[in-house]
Amino acid sequence: MIAENNYRCSIVRIEDCLTTEKSSGGAMKSYRKELWFEVPTRRALINITPKVETCLKESGIKEGLVLVNAMHITASVFINDDEPGLHHDFEVWLEKLAPHEPVSQYRHNVAEDNADAHLKRQIMGREVVVAVTEGKLDLGPWEQIFYGEFDGRRRKRVLVKIIGE
Amino acid sequence: MIAENNYRCSIVRIEDCLTTEKSSGGAMKSYRKELWFEVPTRRALINITPKVETCLKESGIKEGLVLVNAMHITASVFINDDEPGLHHDFEVWLEKLAPHEPVSQYRHNVAEDNADAHLKRQIMGREVVVAVTEGKLDLGPWEQIFYGEFDGRRRKRVLVKIIGE
Amino acid sequence: MIAENNYRCSIVRIEDCLTTEKSSGGAMKSYRKELWFEVPTRRALINITPKVETCLKESGIKEGLVLVNAMHITASVFINDDEPGLHHDFEVWLEKLAPHEPVSQYRHNVAEDNADAHLKRQIMGREVVVAVTEGKLDLGPWEQIFYGEFDGRRRKRVLVKIIGE
Repeated sequence: MIAENNYRCSIVRIEDCLTTEKSSGGAMKSYRKELWFEVPTRRALINITPKVETCLKESGIKEGLVLVNAMHITASVFINDDEPGLHHDFEVWLEKLAPHEPVSQYRHNVAEDNADAHLKRQIMGREVVVAVTEGKLDLGPWEQIFYGEFDGRRRKRVLVKIIGE
Repeated sequence: MIAENNYRCSIVRIEDCLTTEKSSGGAMKSYRKELWFEVPTRRALINITPKVETCLKESGIKEGLVLVNAMHITASVFINDDEPGLHHDFEVWLEKLAPHEPVSQYRHNVAEDNADAHLKRQIMGREVVVAVTEGKLDLGPWEQIFYGEFDGRRRKRVLVKIIGE
Repeated sequence: MIAENNYRCSIVRIEDCLTTEKSSGGAMKSYRKELWFEVPTRRALINITPKVETCLKESGIKEGLVLVNAMHITASVFINDDEPGLHHDFEVWLEKLAPHEPVSQYRHNVAEDNADAHLKRQIMGREVVVAVTEGKLDLGPWEQIFYGEFDGRRRKRVLVKIIGE
């Protein structure tokens, strides 16, 4: 049921509201922390929002941007819902789009068996950038930050970098 | 027709040009606005480039970064072409990769029927970060910023956060 | 072999370490450069990490963020492994998810034949944001920045924008 014109020009209204302009002209600050993970399974989705909030408090930064990125190329940082049914759906869906087996289907799998993890991470994304407003993560009502592990069972890292004032 | 060696080492040249170095050492400024949407259909792609340009003018920021992100996890902000044929292709393609129906195929669909929207948004992405140069969005010739709605018919928001000087 | 509970709550430990807090309060600087490409084939993956490192050195910025984005909507900038087998896997996988042929399957392909390139780039992503720490790209051990060309044989650009202090 694809109606092409549904897919364009279908706005009732775009409103602007909740403007907060800031122009304090402060000095720039930066902050860096690594979060380390060791996931006992091959795959896992872990809510790291509280960890990132702690970093933000430690930084003392009130206005700026937070970058949260996987430092490994078989893992992801992404924002979505913290709901177990959905996480199961992600697992089934990613296996369909980029199946782990047969491992022989991938040329990358010579000494390793994680080619699918490199592909899955492209769909889920490497990083998120989140606004910092009045000292808080400026997230929507259901937005939660996740570490997506697709080739676990070893120590891996996420980088939290905050710049602002 | 996959030629592996086509896929690597196939550059004729990488040139550098159009350098603009800035080192004015100004004070950091920040700006925040929410754009609200109420899309009457389940799905829609809406060009929000003029809205983001207006935000940038309001901010007075000349050099920096703009973050534009969906604040809802069944929507996307992405950059691509403003061409109706392509938007139709996106609709068909996303339905193929993450079909809405049957809704019973997803465990997330208990009280809701929007699991596919959570998946579609992972492919299209949550956010874009755009450079600000000389007071303008530093976009390529065909780059346009879109709000991608995948579970509409209610009020939803996009965040525009600008930092710079 | 999908074990739902494998997919959640499976952390052994999340450790924090390697904290580097910076609060120097310096003045903000910015830097911009375009990298130009002319790829003789339709598709190619090109490691641009050394180019971005050169930009960072030129900028003199020690703490901040680097944005690297394709300025064209049929190309990508992404971070993954510099391994030829994996690049072949990406090629096969992207052709499966968003096939080039038959070109008639896409409505965008009226004067052009690159609809698939617009789709492939959504999976691979438009941009990366990388932290700058102590004057260096703050990348994990295997992270390399790539330009992904999906509709080459003409001049196209990547933008490098750095802000920080």
